[in-house]
Amino acid sequence: MGLMNPMLRVGYPASISADLLRDFPEGIELIPLSDKMDHDVEIDVWIPDPYSTKALRTWAHLRGVKLVLSLMAGTEWIPATVGPHVTISNARGAHNISTAEWTVAAILTMLKYFPLYLEIQRSGVWKRRFEANAYYKKITGSTREEYPPVMQEELTGKTVLLVGHGEIGKEIERMLKPFHVDVLRVARTARTQPEVHAVSELDNLLPRAHVVVLILPSTPESKGLIGAAQLALMRQGALLVNSARGPIVDTGALVEALKAGRIRAALDVTDPEPLPEGHPLWSCPNLLLTEHVAGSTPQFTPRALHTAAEELRRYMKGEPLKNVVQAAL
Amino acid sequence: MGLMNPMLRVGYPASISADLLRDFPEGIELIPLSDKMDHDVEIDVWIPDPYSTKALRTWAHLRGVKLVLSLMAGTEWIPATVGPHVTISNARGAHNISTAEWTVAAILTMLKYFPLYLEIQRSGVWKRRFEANAYYKKITGSTREEYPPVMQEELTGKTVLLVGHGEIGKEIERMLKPFHVDVLRVARTARTQPEVHAVSELDNLLPRAHVVVLILPSTPESKGLIGAAQLALMRQGALLVNSARGPIVDTGALVEALKAGRIRAALDVTDPEPLPEGHPLWSCPNLLLTEHVAGSTPQFTPRALHTAAEELRRYMKGEPLKNVVQAAL
Repeated sequence: MGLMNPMLRVGYPASISADLLRDFPEGIELIPLSDKMDHDVEIDVWIPDPYSTKALRTWAHLRGVKLVLSLMAGTEWIPATVGPHVTISNARGAHNISTAEWTVAAILTMLKYFPLYLEIQRSGVWKRRFEANAYYKKITGSTREEYPPVMQEELTGKTVLLVGHGEIGKEIERMLKPFHVDVLRVARTARTQPEVHAVSELDNLLPRAHVVVLILPSTPESKGLIGAAQLALMRQGALLVNSARGPIVDTGALVEALKAGRIRAALDVTDPEPLPEGHPLWSCPNLLLTEHVAGSTPQFTPRALHTAAEELRRYMKGEPLKNVVQAAL
Repeated sequence: MGLMNPMLRVGYPASISADLLRDFPEGIELIPLSDKMDHDVEIDVWIPDPYSTKALRTWAHLRGVKLVLSLMAGTEWIPATVGPHVTISNARGAHNISTAEWTVAAILTMLKYFPLYLEIQRSGVWKRRFEANAYYKKITGSTREEYPPVMQEELTGKTVLLVGHGEIGKEIERMLKPFHVDVLRVARTARTQPEVHAVSELDNLLPRAHVVVLILPSTPESKGLIGAAQLALMRQGALLVNSARGPIVDTGALVEALKAGRIRAALDVTDPEPLPEGHPLWSCPNLLLTEHVAGSTPQFTPRALHTAAEELRRYMKGEPLKNVVQAAL
């Protein structure tokens, strides 16, 4: 049957609505794959389920895969699963806007004290607004008597340290532009235009920042990059934002720093993940925590499938792929 | 004694730290005024307490005031108090950045479902994150099955209707620029470059907007501008943001629309204000409520005093003032 059918066989998660695949090139056979399938299937190109546990169940039944088109930016689990003889390409960029928006939203929410105001809203007592002034003094360490009382902070004019300056880091910087922040940048290697410092400079830069954004890939070198020593170098009341990967931060050290009122944090990712019930992070003060949702907007799947369709078009024409994360041996 | 002292006498709220007045011109006598003062004082220029109730107590003891330099943008109470023979100038602009930031922060917070995630955080149950997907479907009315599940929305690409296009409205538009939103504008009178529609067009524009921002002055015409009919014209799940004045919205109609899950709202101002305990707004769903705090950042008083100092300098030189809201008869 393979001989009778010259069409490229492309397997995709059955959970994705077929009408989102309109964009795909002609001359292919689209095969919906369930993670509950019980028979083997021969395909050429595999679009794995965005949830790796489901994708792994499907993988057990796939034969003949030559190309993996991941819908996610993070493809950590794929090479060890499919082996070195398969090309892997990712949907780089599909998360950029949503993750950058989450990051800017988290920064503003924390500087505007919205978690506290939501608590006041639940209590239904207007005059509790003055708790915002007490919070301001406590978290920033300000001893100045201000009149009228300060009820929230401004982002405008603050110093933001971007740890990581890839596509999402640049997108965050673009969204911060109207706030005239001083941007400091750190990446694996130093660069110029704009100035990006080497990660070896991190400890020197941390004390200057009001906001520290982690937006670097998960690698052996980035694991534990922010430990107790780095948290101690942050300014009193500075905000740590992690929209990258949980293991970049030493969770135990972070819990201590939050409980001590030393810093604030906003996390979309944690270590461990999922965060188990009863974990001390859940109840830390000065924290906004979301459950790894920054990339999950209505625009994500269409964008990622558009990138996959483009990659597939190149593959069929024999052109080089754009987002290769592993070339087949 | 007045004859022996030719210096201009400038009264200011005693609660403001004197070192913030460094900027003030030489040749004046600065007189701190308490709202608990029990004797009359002769001054030329009055900087009222930002809280009008305190300012009114002080006013009862003031004699000879020729110029009022308000630190606030809103000066509604002043003309009737001081009468027509006094010039009134305001600190236009001192709230612009903070109020625009609050507005953008509120929009992002609501589109990212942070109030829901904070509730999930309090419960400490990771898998409750899927409630965000249920919320998305319910509030937007989406019947599409999306995979992976939608967990929050994007601001990028949405349509934002600015009702009011003064200094703060323009500032909000500037901060929204990186999100490539479609901006629609309404003001009292139509203008071009950029296109601003007359307020008579409001009902035609409301159905097009995902976000409706109220940032117009409180006037007899703006009272009740957003009533039941206007709320009914908004899209399912659209977000109403009020960072202007409470009476612009019909509170009863808003409570109904929120309870029915028809729209979302973020309010820094309410009618009545302060919102009494037990008022139905406190417990409305789909609502972020802060207690008239958008202008109260650490930068506010220094900025407002800087504007007042500039105005005072002009007054002393006999130059025209910049922010006159009432010229003395």
